[in-house]
Amino acid sequence: MKKYISQATVDRLPLYFRTLQLAEEEGQMIISSEELGRQLDFTPEQVRKDLTSFGQFGRKGIGYIVAELKNHIGKILGLESKRRLAIVGVGHLGAALANYENFDSLGFETVAIFDVDERSVGYEINNIKIYDFKKMDSVVKHKRIDIGVIAVPEVHAQDAADALVEAGIKGIWNFAPVKLSVPESVELVNEDLTIGLSTLGYRLTQKEL
Amino acid sequence: MKKYISQATVDRLPLYFRTLQLAEEEGQMIISSEELGRQLDFTPEQVRKDLTSFGQFGRKGIGYIVAELKNHIGKILGLESKRRLAIVGVGHLGAALANYENFDSLGFETVAIFDVDERSVGYEINNIKIYDFKKMDSVVKHKRIDIGVIAVPEVHAQDAADALVEAGIKGIWNFAPVKLSVPESVELVNEDLTIGLSTLGYRLTQKEL
Repeated sequence: MKKYISQATVDRLPLYFRTLQLAEEEGQMIISSEELGRQLDFTPEQVRKDLTSFGQFGRKGIGYIVAELKNHIGKILGLESKRRLAIVGVGHLGAALANYENFDSLGFETVAIFDVDERSVGYEINNIKIYDFKKMDSVVKHKRIDIGVIAVPEVHAQDAADALVEAGIKGIWNFAPVKLSVPESVELVNEDLTIGLSTLGYRLTQKEL
Repeated sequence: MKKYISQATVDRLPLYFRTLQLAEEEGQMIISSEELGRQLDFTPEQVRKDLTSFGQFGRKGIGYIVAELKNHIGKILGLESKRRLAIVGVGHLGAALANYENFDSLGFETVAIFDVDERSVGYEINNIKIYDFKKMDSVVKHKRIDIGVIAVPEVHAQDAADALVEAGIKGIWNFAPVKLSVPESVELVNEDLTIGLSTLGYRLTQKEL
């Protein structure tokens, strides 16, 4: 039976995963909901509610077994099946994403960057090779790439999406502020950088009222 | 009386705002919940629920008045009090954020970039001047900067936050994957780039089960 986990809880799972990973690296065996909450600025009640939603129960007065909980969350997040990424676009955003270290620990590996500018082809960013956009089809198939990350300007985003879909990608992570059209078989997640900033603006305004 | 609007709804407000802005630019006077929903991939019911949460009721069979609804959402988001931003760190991420065009239409203006590397000081990115990190205090005060955007490497993020707080900033938007400690008087929003990617990984795994 598939268990339904709310989107809000799914959003928090990477945070739990990273906290548990750090605790494990430091040799910690057991962690309480209080300590998990403290690390993440959640109440212990929130932590227990989140973890209960997928069947993890801490022992009263003891806590959770770090390795067990971490592995369980990793399974839910699908981190066991290591996902292979390609970044499309080698501007500042593409370069920033290629240099972002935290994807790796979550089971994502960036294995290719594509760009239309032939002058950048053959170079590497953070040891990831830049390929000609026109070679996408063969590179995606050869390197068994699952996810395409769109980091091109807005006007080229749909072209990038079309090429990724054509090459057989399964999921697209889109940073361009534009609504992309992709087949239903392809999973699309839009990263909207204005949301965090608007939230901050909203909170400042509420404070000033 | 302050009306409570859920965080999830607040997160969607910038999307509504941008859609309405676009409609207004195209000369559209009236918009239905169906059309708003279509543009944003929400159900009409979701749209009506969101807008009702802050007292906006469309007229049955007619819809919402574009300009009125847009201005109302703008007020809630605090877009009337134009916020002034400074970016700290001029690496790829800082440069990508300086070049991001969509902040402006949401009422945010980036007016300064700070960096510790003296070689970059005095240059501009997207017409925004780069200042010496050491001059932060006077620049923040002189330019009446509200919000600091942290785009430095993880190890320098707390130093950047401390300097921003010291300079009298009201809010911090943090891109470094690290938990910052700031006084309660300063609003902190963390941007976690791993969440979107993990969501995508999760959905792909669910599909493959």
